[in-house]
Amino acid sequence: MSQVERIRTIQASEWIGQRVRMAGWLYRLRRLGGISFLVLRDGYGSFQAVIDDADELSRLRNALPESVIETEGIVVTEAQAPGGLELHDCRVRVITPVTETLPFELNKKVLKPGLDVFLTHAPVGLRHPCKQATFRLFSAVLAAFHEYLASQGFTEIQTPKLVGTATEGGANVFAVSYFDRRAYLAQSPQLYKQIMVGVFERVYEVGPVFRAEPHDTSRHTNQYTSLDAEMGFIRDHTDVMDLLTGVVRHIFETLRRHHAGDLSMSGARVPTVGRRIPAVKFREAQQIIAEQFGEDCRDETDLSPQHERWLCEWAQQAHGSELLFVTHYPAVKRPFYTMPDPDDAEHTHSFDLLFRGTEIVTGGQRVHRYRQLLSHLKRWGLDEADFSGYLEAFRYGMPPHGGFGMGAERLLQMIVGAANLRETTLFPRDMTRLSP
Amino acid sequence: MSQVERIRTIQASEWIGQRVRMAGWLYRLRRLGGISFLVLRDGYGSFQAVIDDADELSRLRNALPESVIETEGIVVTEAQAPGGLELHDCRVRVITPVTETLPFELNKKVLKPGLDVFLTHAPVGLRHPCKQATFRLFSAVLAAFHEYLASQGFTEIQTPKLVGTATEGGANVFAVSYFDRRAYLAQSPQLYKQIMVGVFERVYEVGPVFRAEPHDTSRHTNQYTSLDAEMGFIRDHTDVMDLLTGVVRHIFETLRRHHAGDLSMSGARVPTVGRRIPAVKFREAQQIIAEQFGEDCRDETDLSPQHERWLCEWAQQAHGSELLFVTHYPAVKRPFYTMPDPDDAEHTHSFDLLFRGTEIVTGGQRVHRYRQLLSHLKRWGLDEADFSGYLEAFRYGMPPHGGFGMGAERLLQMIVGAANLRETTLFPRDMTRLSP
Repeated sequence: MSQVERIRTIQASEWIGQRVRMAGWLYRLRRLGGISFLVLRDGYGSFQAVIDDADELSRLRNALPESVIETEGIVVTEAQAPGGLELHDCRVRVITPVTETLPFELNKKVLKPGLDVFLTHAPVGLRHPCKQATFRLFSAVLAAFHEYLASQGFTEIQTPKLVGTATEGGANVFAVSYFDRRAYLAQSPQLYKQIMVGVFERVYEVGPVFRAEPHDTSRHTNQYTSLDAEMGFIRDHTDVMDLLTGVVRHIFETLRRHHAGDLSMSGARVPTVGRRIPAVKFREAQQIIAEQFGEDCRDETDLSPQHERWLCEWAQQAHGSELLFVTHYPAVKRPFYTMPDPDDAEHTHSFDLLFRGTEIVTGGQRVHRYRQLLSHLKRWGLDEADFSGYLEAFRYGMPPHGGFGMGAERLLQMIVGAANLRETTLFPRDMTRLSP
Repeated sequence: MSQVERIRTIQASEWIGQRVRMAGWLYRLRRLGGISFLVLRDGYGSFQAVIDDADELSRLRNALPESVIETEGIVVTEAQAPGGLELHDCRVRVITPVTETLPFELNKKVLKPGLDVFLTHAPVGLRHPCKQATFRLFSAVLAAFHEYLASQGFTEIQTPKLVGTATEGGANVFAVSYFDRRAYLAQSPQLYKQIMVGVFERVYEVGPVFRAEPHDTSRHTNQYTSLDAEMGFIRDHTDVMDLLTGVVRHIFETLRRHHAGDLSMSGARVPTVGRRIPAVKFREAQQIIAEQFGEDCRDETDLSPQHERWLCEWAQQAHGSELLFVTHYPAVKRPFYTMPDPDDAEHTHSFDLLFRGTEIVTGGQRVHRYRQLLSHLKRWGLDEADFSGYLEAFRYGMPPHGGFGMGAERLLQMIVGAANLRETTLFPRDMTRLSP
């Protein structure tokens, strides 16, 4: 059977009228009189093979769903078939038989099990076409991020995930036994990407970050994929916001143009991003909340999840936008490296980007002067000695710079409208879950 | 001064005759009579600004090397200048002054300090043009890897780096305090990428892996960037070798075509990869070593670094190739998931790829049948319960598959001909080094 070439579902339309070999996982087998319709799923889609030979069909006798099957036949157009194509005159062979019943059905339009059962059985559950679509979108988000930043002159870096001191504030880090001493898992590539602005001006990184937050919420996990960028020679944080606007627009356009099928399969919608995303200052945001939603939070130094939802509601009404920048967060709630607003030292050149009610990006301008950085460290109660490598970059000349970090799984959660971040995380890590 | 657009060195040739703003780090300032030549380095290269106004020059009076400087002038062609272009009629402004002397000179053709001093001061040492070039090549290697695998229908994944059990053999893993229990840092994405073959057929991952090896050698560190790929529906390991040949060829061609300057700056050479990379079986390799180099290692079950160097010497002489596949390693030295050779169960459908004397890739075909995998776990003395998620993928149908893992920093080490892996690792982690 292996004399002809094996093709994938996405290639089938190029082979009409020709004899090909196709292979995949048994999705469904239906018998209608003497004819059987075998639907196989491969890594790209599904196709239907029509079997009218009893000998061939008998080979599938003991094959349960998810058996790996190879079939050879002629590609023909057939309006009724999924994808408009079918294989006719088929021979079949079981490559890997499955003899046990699945933990839940994969060949239904919607996956039945609840999140917890699904996650326990993710190694097979992820094969469901909706899940395939979701994580193909994840791959596309990463590719679009790479593509856009490369087009803007950014150099990709990979920085250490094992660090010697629990930096950036200290709490919520995982400790590691590192030979005869203690190391920590990096919460972000923040300090390294800033150092690298001194080398390449513009750098980005795609990689895992680790947060030991003991939260069991629908929007936190303990490892996620951070899309980080940092750029030099900016005027202020608005240059970073412009870059981020371009990034988000490119990601959404890429999904819309090249992944319409996956978007529809995973129930996703992507918004159109105009020239500018609307922006409000933190204090204005609190004012809006007080006036429009009746809660006076003007004494608070941060926004709650409910505040973020209200603000997005407002942005939709006032600007027709599903995205909203909130800028100038209070200095007390931002890390030591955040640039204060020169006109208002209580507030900062920082921003969050909210999307459909949730913060998906944090960023801003950073302090770039050595003396100022030293005084910030002191004010934040941090020990200079813990930052010696970082500080060396600043002792020897750093330009005005800034950047952002965006959680890829969180962005995808908002795109597909998933209730829980764990639905858009391949194998999520949380307080109770270290496997699979 | 900020009225005209800031351009980067790589853009200068598009602006000849026009007034532009350029900015960068003070690389060198030379005075020749009344004229001064200011060389600035930005994230992409260097450029020379000619200053003949005493007032403008006086602004640079206290600026030591690495001061961040902005200059505005007219782009003119000048054969003598680096890059063939100069800025004339310049005004200058110091953005960030440097007042301390560098730990070592950055404006010499070759970096003077030894590796240890360099690594301690990497946050500034990496600004040296040769180091910039090396890590720009690193970025290009990653981009070429992404590009090739996407072109071959691979889906990118990001898998957990925190795992519940010390799998794949158990030794040399870092332990993490994970809330009230113990987790481990993943040594590779091996088990996850295999699971994901069941979902997407073809997957790849670029990310950090962690090895707690207590080795202090020139070719090991404790965190590196692994370029991993895994593909389904293969005949045997030779399909994976064909994929890898394409990957390596594409990486080398990308560097040659688009990074000639960086290659020359970092002293790198890339070989041409023909249609096939020569391959010898493990036993043949031992035979070659015995016959050609006079050391009888035919009782051994692995190759030593010296053996690998000899084999590459042989491949160069016999095949004119700097790359060599060694295949069919003994089963006792390979992990439990390795597919045995059906004609010789002592050996396996595995391979290493050697390049310039060093192994840069390990790969092979994997066991895909559930029963066989269970019997392998038993034979390797591993506990089924530790692999329950992994095994679930196999209980429900896996196709014949295989893949490889390539260390990106190791590949780059061989490309640039660095004596130590730490020279091609951005901020290396080893037994003594957790910062910067």
